[in-house]
Amino acid sequence: MRLGVVILAAGLGKRMRSALPKVLHPVAGKPLLAHVLSAAEMIGAERVVTVYGHGGDQVRTVLADAGCLWVEQAEQLGTGHAVLQAMPQVADMDRVLILYGDVPLISAETLNRLLGVAADTGLGILTADVPEPSGYGRIQRDSCGRVVGIVEEKDATPDQRAITEINTGILVADRARLDGWLARIDNNNVQGEYYLTDVIALAAAQGVPVASTRPGRLAEVAGVNDRVQLAALERDYQRRAAEDLMRSGVTLADPSRFDLRGVLHADPDVVIDINCVFEGAVRLSTGARIGPNCFLKDCSIGRDTQVLANSVIEGASVGADARIGPFARLRPDSRLADHTHVGNFVEIKKTSLGTGSKANHLAYLGDAEIGAGVNVGAGTITCNYDGANKSITRIEDGAFIGSNTALVAPVRIGTGATIGAGSVIARDTPADQLTLTRAPQRTIPGWTRPRKRPAS
Amino acid sequence: MRLGVVILAAGLGKRMRSALPKVLHPVAGKPLLAHVLSAAEMIGAERVVTVYGHGGDQVRTVLADAGCLWVEQAEQLGTGHAVLQAMPQVADMDRVLILYGDVPLISAETLNRLLGVAADTGLGILTADVPEPSGYGRIQRDSCGRVVGIVEEKDATPDQRAITEINTGILVADRARLDGWLARIDNNNVQGEYYLTDVIALAAAQGVPVASTRPGRLAEVAGVNDRVQLAALERDYQRRAAEDLMRSGVTLADPSRFDLRGVLHADPDVVIDINCVFEGAVRLSTGARIGPNCFLKDCSIGRDTQVLANSVIEGASVGADARIGPFARLRPDSRLADHTHVGNFVEIKKTSLGTGSKANHLAYLGDAEIGAGVNVGAGTITCNYDGANKSITRIEDGAFIGSNTALVAPVRIGTGATIGAGSVIARDTPADQLTLTRAPQRTIPGWTRPRKRPAS
Amino acid sequence: MRLGVVILAAGLGKRMRSALPKVLHPVAGKPLLAHVLSAAEMIGAERVVTVYGHGGDQVRTVLADAGCLWVEQAEQLGTGHAVLQAMPQVADMDRVLILYGDVPLISAETLNRLLGVAADTGLGILTADVPEPSGYGRIQRDSCGRVVGIVEEKDATPDQRAITEINTGILVADRARLDGWLARIDNNNVQGEYYLTDVIALAAAQGVPVASTRPGRLAEVAGVNDRVQLAALERDYQRRAAEDLMRSGVTLADPSRFDLRGVLHADPDVVIDINCVFEGAVRLSTGARIGPNCFLKDCSIGRDTQVLANSVIEGASVGADARIGPFARLRPDSRLADHTHVGNFVEIKKTSLGTGSKANHLAYLGDAEIGAGVNVGAGTITCNYDGANKSITRIEDGAFIGSNTALVAPVRIGTGATIGAGSVIARDTPADQLTLTRAPQRTIPGWTRPRKRPAS
Repeated sequence: MRLGVVILAAGLGKRMRSALPKVLHPVAGKPLLAHVLSAAEMIGAERVVTVYGHGGDQVRTVLADAGCLWVEQAEQLGTGHAVLQAMPQVADMDRVLILYGDVPLISAETLNRLLGVAADTGLGILTADVPEPSGYGRIQRDSCGRVVGIVEEKDATPDQRAITEINTGILVADRARLDGWLARIDNNNVQGEYYLTDVIALAAAQGVPVASTRPGRLAEVAGVNDRVQLAALERDYQRRAAEDLMRSGVTLADPSRFDLRGVLHADPDVVIDINCVFEGAVRLSTGARIGPNCFLKDCSIGRDTQVLANSVIEGASVGADARIGPFARLRPDSRLADHTHVGNFVEIKKTSLGTGSKANHLAYLGDAEIGAGVNVGAGTITCNYDGANKSITRIEDGAFIGSNTALVAPVRIGTGATIGAGSVIARDTPADQLTLTRAPQRTIPGWTRPRKRPAS
Repeated sequence: MRLGVVILAAGLGKRMRSALPKVLHPVAGKPLLAHVLSAAEMIGAERVVTVYGHGGDQVRTVLADAGCLWVEQAEQLGTGHAVLQAMPQVADMDRVLILYGDVPLISAETLNRLLGVAADTGLGILTADVPEPSGYGRIQRDSCGRVVGIVEEKDATPDQRAITEINTGILVADRARLDGWLARIDNNNVQGEYYLTDVIALAAAQGVPVASTRPGRLAEVAGVNDRVQLAALERDYQRRAAEDLMRSGVTLADPSRFDLRGVLHADPDVVIDINCVFEGAVRLSTGARIGPNCFLKDCSIGRDTQVLANSVIEGASVGADARIGPFARLRPDSRLADHTHVGNFVEIKKTSLGTGSKANHLAYLGDAEIGAGVNVGAGTITCNYDGANKSITRIEDGAFIGSNTALVAPVRIGTGATIGAGSVIARDTPADQLTLTRAPQRTIPGWTRPRKRPAS
Repeated sequence: MRLGVVILAAGLGKRMRSALPKVLHPVAGKPLLAHVLSAAEMIGAERVVTVYGHGGDQVRTVLADAGCLWVEQAEQLGTGHAVLQAMPQVADMDRVLILYGDVPLISAETLNRLLGVAADTGLGILTADVPEPSGYGRIQRDSCGRVVGIVEEKDATPDQRAITEINTGILVADRARLDGWLARIDNNNVQGEYYLTDVIALAAAQGVPVASTRPGRLAEVAGVNDRVQLAALERDYQRRAAEDLMRSGVTLADPSRFDLRGVLHADPDVVIDINCVFEGAVRLSTGARIGPNCFLKDCSIGRDTQVLANSVIEGASVGADARIGPFARLRPDSRLADHTHVGNFVEIKKTSLGTGSKANHLAYLGDAEIGAGVNVGAGTITCNYDGANKSITRIEDGAFIGSNTALVAPVRIGTGATIGAGSVIARDTPADQLTLTRAPQRTIPGWTRPRKRPAS
């Protein structure tokens, strides 16, 4: 059974009030449509066709690597019309599943269940029980519980309006039959649109049984029409991500203050304090502790390492038993070995720090190769940029860099060398010796303190 | 129809356990009473009279510019008595609306509706359906749904106690009639107080119909008696502010972690990450992105500018396509032009930064006028204060300030000048040339590292 | 009536997926078991016996000072068996109360009520009404409301399953009778375990009346089996702590973004902004204001002092009317007097700062004794560590330290002394005079700026 998926993604999204097409708005850092594409991939779709409309070029550009086919729906003539545009692209499929680019949290588990129940009948729909069905098509069932139709809000009797089982719009059908049904849908309605929903009535009229199932969670079938709904799904996603992590052995101080926008691999006994944000691919090893208000992106944190409050880490790898922060900033291409310490108001960029090396206070280390057992004093700055080019600072094992030192790259500090406080080191320094630049300390005779000028 | 508003604000607020009068406690950064005064202004009240009592001087001082009249209620003899004190000040009004200084979220929309329904009858009350009516006066209606009285909790039969429609205390009345009713209220009750509520019974006894309406949201009629209730209204306010923003086209990563204490003008497609606080008047242009844990006060952020995590901005304006933070601090009277970059651990105060200029790492720039295309190196400090006076640092277009440089103001760095790393620049420097202060680099022969002293 | 408490703490906690024994996982920074031990202490238990099993050594080590006796349950043969192991240790007690190491939030108030109702009957149980009783033993009562038994889920009829009053497992019994009942419990059940619950049936069979009461809040009897439940109790604890604070006169900007892991003594009219974390013992005096995203541990903050956004304070005391932050870091053994200012990107460690002294920008002050009225310029660093030893910097009253200065300890800056910007001060400086180190400012003739190297 070859499965084709058609994703309807041509909606305008006017209530988003955005220059960005609706399906590109992110949940958990990933476009709505990309979530749907992932679901299609997870259920083993052989072909995926996305029907685009408004902002289509932007959508195609952003999701160029998604591996789906693209079909334009130039005019917005309804969901039935949209699917019809896509059918030629799935002509060789056995079944077609219809998904929606603005219904991002649909799960592979629910879709697989739908595919399962629909396997025999050739037509299956996903329905949902909702507390407030107003505005949705209601599912009509006969006394045996079989789906016999969908009544739209406007056509519903009061009794029918009381039905809380609604049509989600997600359906799977035998491809050949779907072709037939789509050909017979008309637009004789107030909006003058072709409704995919009519397929159900056509099938029922033919006596084709309509299988149905419900989603595991209501959020799976929730659509995004404005940013209030977008935020609601974002929170739902995050709550679920938080629960998954906790069940896998991670402690979260507050699951409602946790944000994941990517993939977080966290070993058991990782502890994450309040209000942390994780983006991209982050790896946290056993026993790692992330303090409050940290932002981590594309990085790995080693076993038992502590990241203290208010730190920002991006594109860096940190070894085991290290201590980072508070107020540390690690930037891309930084590699910190085991037992390293990086303290407050320290920025590290494109720099390696060897085992046990420390930069505990106010420093900027950029484009530096720093050995093991190095102590970088407070206020140390690598002058890695001369206004035109970046150069490298090398600090060899066991060196001690006195406070407030400027290291003018390219420069090499020898093994075990000591640099006097307040120096500007512009030439390589020998191993094991003290090197410094310092003007003599003078006290100025007869000097008097400035006095406050009168306000002018 | 001239409308007078009487705001009762004399309550003690004992459960606040505060030296601050209750009506001065803030919701969304603004005193409770100020919210009520705003509502009165929004519905076009011609005169507003605030009845104060405890802490009255402090209340009058804080809200001196509110444009209302003040009447003292020296003794706390009940709401009827309080209104009576104010009546001479509204003797020339046609109608009088009674509001409460500790019921801050009442909306102009609800009040206008109340004024509307009461227009004919001369008396209107605001009622509310609450899940737990216990403690409130219950609204009695006849079989036609007309209000015929209010039964206080203590006088209520079990059937009456089951009524969930309660009296909010907010009412509007024909001024002349109100005079009459107030004159007839007595204090023959357990507390020995004069209750404004008795007006309803007096009116009903005279056959005056009592119009009524309900608030749009329950929080509109919620009073503040302790800080738990204060926090609940704060959250309600913020949730609503967040929803309004989202509906206007702003993405909020988490609407329950958003705080606005002032006025935020945000264009569509602004994105605000978790846990940001906005105070005063803040302006965010289209495409601006505010990272997590930022604090912004009285500032404007230009189009497509990014403010990265953990930044604090106050009293500054930032141009378009700029990048601020993480860990940046912009202080008052700073003006950053388009394409500027201000990076981590940089403080900027009373300083202008020209187009494309950068201060990316650990720096303090105060009282400085910095041109376009300037690169301020890491660790640069403007020495703007000599202990008595502040002086100005001028850095002209295209200058390059080497790292760890101190600029001793007043001083001017010429156009295109370069300053060597680690310098202390106390005199103006020529354009296009390298200026520095530097002692020669020396290596000390025979020096040995200090050894760990034995613990004493 | 001598009261013995037996705490069952031998459970495996497999669903925690942790190397840490379940009862050592923290709520509010304190192990689950420690909460239960505190409750036992608060109700005046004369003896407390903890039955441990998995990870017992670690549990005993962490809670070595808890003052309880320890009994090992080598085999997990059920709750009845566990209590039986502990009975020899309470043989001289009059009554025995059974608590659970993974039910941390049980309150002394509830336990005292249980002890009260059970005083006459010799047997009392704590029951709870829960919305979803599935899985719990249901309480059976006769028509007079007397407890007559507990039906386990698997044995329950549909009617019994509808009962929402469940057994919490917490019970108190006359010690002598409990001995008798425990001796008669058997393990003839599917799991082959001895169930403490059987005591109720045995008592009922003997006609012993079973007293009962319910907890004040459901969270009191909630157990922790996985980290989702752990987080739920953490939040419950924090919500309650926040409410207690607010009722005592503290304003919390958002009670759902407040974390207390220790003891916070806050006077009335303290204001705490969003997202703050308090650990250890923290004292906040009247009028103190703590800004957003601050982390405070083991510290005291004086009257009317402001701690601005994103500050981290640990082990420090701050006087009155001081201003700390934003982005300040105070480390242990720091004492800041009244009217001090510590600004952004300043780290202070083991340092005293006299009245009115200021360090407003980018600085590291470690191991320093700083007098009153001192101004520490931006970029000042105390060089307190020479790679082997720490030394002290003394700055006397009224001194002015120019920006970007390194103070090489041990060193003393005299009263009223001024240090020129960019100096490295390695010897004591005289009072009231200007001391500095500075190389002459030079402009290099003929120098040209580096050009961008071609990409290699």
